[in-house]
Amino acid sequence: MKVIFDTDPGIDDAMALLYLSKLPQIELLGITTVVGNASLDTTTRNALFLRQKFGISAPVVRGAGKTLDGVEKAEPVIVHGLNGLGEIEIPDVDQSGLADGEASQFIIDTVRAHPGEVTIIAVGRMTNLALALRADPEVARLTKQVIIMGGAFGYQGRSGNITPAAEANIHGDPVAADEIFAAEWPVVVVGLDVTHDIILDTDYLAALSRDAGENAELLRQMCDHYARFYKEIMGLSGVVGHDLLAVTYALHPEWFETRRGPIVVVRDGIAVGQTIQMPVERKGGHPAWAGRPVQTICTAVEGDKVLAHFRDTVAG
Amino acid sequence: MKVIFDTDPGIDDAMALLYLSKLPQIELLGITTVVGNASLDTTTRNALFLRQKFGISAPVVRGAGKTLDGVEKAEPVIVHGLNGLGEIEIPDVDQSGLADGEASQFIIDTVRAHPGEVTIIAVGRMTNLALALRADPEVARLTKQVIIMGGAFGYQGRSGNITPAAEANIHGDPVAADEIFAAEWPVVVVGLDVTHDIILDTDYLAALSRDAGENAELLRQMCDHYARFYKEIMGLSGVVGHDLLAVTYALHPEWFETRRGPIVVVRDGIAVGQTIQMPVERKGGHPAWAGRPVQTICTAVEGDKVLAHFRDTVAG
Repeated sequence: MKVIFDTDPGIDDAMALLYLSKLPQIELLGITTVVGNASLDTTTRNALFLRQKFGISAPVVRGAGKTLDGVEKAEPVIVHGLNGLGEIEIPDVDQSGLADGEASQFIIDTVRAHPGEVTIIAVGRMTNLALALRADPEVARLTKQVIIMGGAFGYQGRSGNITPAAEANIHGDPVAADEIFAAEWPVVVVGLDVTHDIILDTDYLAALSRDAGENAELLRQMCDHYARFYKEIMGLSGVVGHDLLAVTYALHPEWFETRRGPIVVVRDGIAVGQTIQMPVERKGGHPAWAGRPVQTICTAVEGDKVLAHFRDTVAG
Repeated sequence: MKVIFDTDPGIDDAMALLYLSKLPQIELLGITTVVGNASLDTTTRNALFLRQKFGISAPVVRGAGKTLDGVEKAEPVIVHGLNGLGEIEIPDVDQSGLADGEASQFIIDTVRAHPGEVTIIAVGRMTNLALALRADPEVARLTKQVIIMGGAFGYQGRSGNITPAAEANIHGDPVAADEIFAAEWPVVVVGLDVTHDIILDTDYLAALSRDAGENAELLRQMCDHYARFYKEIMGLSGVVGHDLLAVTYALHPEWFETRRGPIVVVRDGIAVGQTIQMPVERKGGHPAWAGRPVQTICTAVEGDKVLAHFRDTVAG
C-alpha cells in the first residue's frame, strides 16, 4: 500500500509516523507538512527529526503555512508544547531529508506517477490536499483513497474539541476540508467519534517503552506533556491517540463501524468547522448535500484491538 | 405537577396530550397552540378537537402563527397529513374550549399566578415561550422548568431530521429556541437522540387500541398516515413517539441519561436550527456559550420502560 502521510507533528502525529514506519505492508512515499499543531517551520523540522529518528527513507516535503480561509489560528502550545513534540529535546536535524518543491505539487506528481494506487493519510489541516485539487482536479479520480483524522459527528457526544461544534483539524481550515469532501475521491473520516476510544494511559505507555525501545520511550516522554493537557482540560487519565487511528483504518477497516453519506463543512458562523453528513438512507432533498459524493465516516471502533495492534507493531 | 402544554397537533402531540390527560399526578392548566405541524388555525382546531375527545377541562389558548425569524416554512403534510392528524375525520369542534387572549400572555399570567410551580412542556416551535420571555423576562425565574421536544446532538447518529443538521421544531424557529436556551429557567431537551428510541409499531398500536379504547383507536388511525412517512422516508417499521417522551421526562427523569452544559442554536447558514451544547466538563472559553446558563440534554433513554408506561397510562 503506497502512502503519502500529510501531517503537522504534533505528538499523535509522531505516534502515527512511528506506526507507519513499522508496518511492512506500507510503502511510505513521502511526508508532507502543514501548519497546525505548530508553525510550518516547526512541523517541518519535527517531521525531519522524526524521519531521522525512526529511520524512514521517504522524503519530507514542506507544505502550506497558511490556510485557505486566511484566518490565522493560535498554535495549540497547551496541547503539543512550544516545540510541537511535548518539549522533548530536539537536536539540529539533518536537512538532507527535505525534498525540493512544495507539498501540493508533490501530492499531484506522486499520485500521477502511481495512478489509482496512492492512499493519502492526512492527519492535519487539509490545506495541502485542497491546493493539490485546485491545481489539478483530476488528482481526485487518480487517488486510491484519502483517510483523514478530523471532524466530529456527535457519536458518544463527541461534537467538537476546539469548539463545541468543531474538531481542530477541520476548524483549522474549514474551506480546505469542505473542498476535500466535495471531490470525487473516496474519503474516510476518522474523527473524534472514534479517536476518543483510543486512550494510551501511563501503564500502556510505560509497557510500550519497555518493550519497544528507544523510539517508544521518546513517545512516552512526549506524552508527559500531552497527558497534562488531557488531565487538566479533559479530565482524562492518559492521552488520546487521534492520528494513529487513521493508520489503523488503512489496514484494518473491519475494526470500524461506519456511516455513508455526503459531507458538508460549515464555513462560517458559530458552528464554523463543523462536519455534517447526510446519511445515504435519508430521503429528501437538501441542496447543499445533493451534488456531493458519498463519503464514509467512522462511528465506532474496537479500541482494544487498535491498542494491541499499535503496541505489537511498534514493538515488533 | 402544574403543567402548560405548548403544542402544534400533530400526531405525536396527540399522543402526548392523551398521555398527559391520563396522568393523575399532572394538573393541566392550559394548552397553548403554535404553528408548526400545520397552520395555526389547524393546530388550534386540532387542540380543541383533542381536548373535547379526551375530556380535558383545561382551556386551549391560541398562540403564534408566525415565527420570530420571519421565515415561512411549508407545512409538513407528508408527515402529519393535510389536517395535521393523519387525515382522520374531524367533526366541527366546540369552540367553548377556546379561552380568550393569546398564548404568550397566558403563559406569563399562569406562571405568575403559581410562582415556581409551573412546568412548561413545549413540543412545537418555541415561539410562544420566546414571546412570553420578551414581554416579561422575569417569567424565566418564576417557571419551575421547561421540558422541550426538540433538537439533536448526534448521539446514535441523530443529528437532524428536517436537515442533516437540524431538528424540525428548532429549525422552525431557531431564534425563539436560542432565546429559550439563553434564559435563566431550567430547560431539559428531549431531542432526536432519545425520541428515536420510542418506536410504536403496528403490534404495539393494535394492542393499545384493544386495551385502551376509543381514544387509543383514534391514535392508531392517525398513525396509519404517520407510519407511511416513517416507512417511506426513514425506513422504519412503526412511528416515532417524539412528543410523548417529553411528558415521560416530567415524571420519570430517572429513565434518562443526560448531559449538562449551555446550549446555542445556529441562527443562519447551512446548519441553521442546529443545537450545540458545550458540556460543563469541558474547559476553555467559547464566547457564544460563556454567558449562558447550564441546561440539560437527554442522551439516552430506557425506551422499553417508556413504552410500557405510556401503554399502562393510556389504558389505565
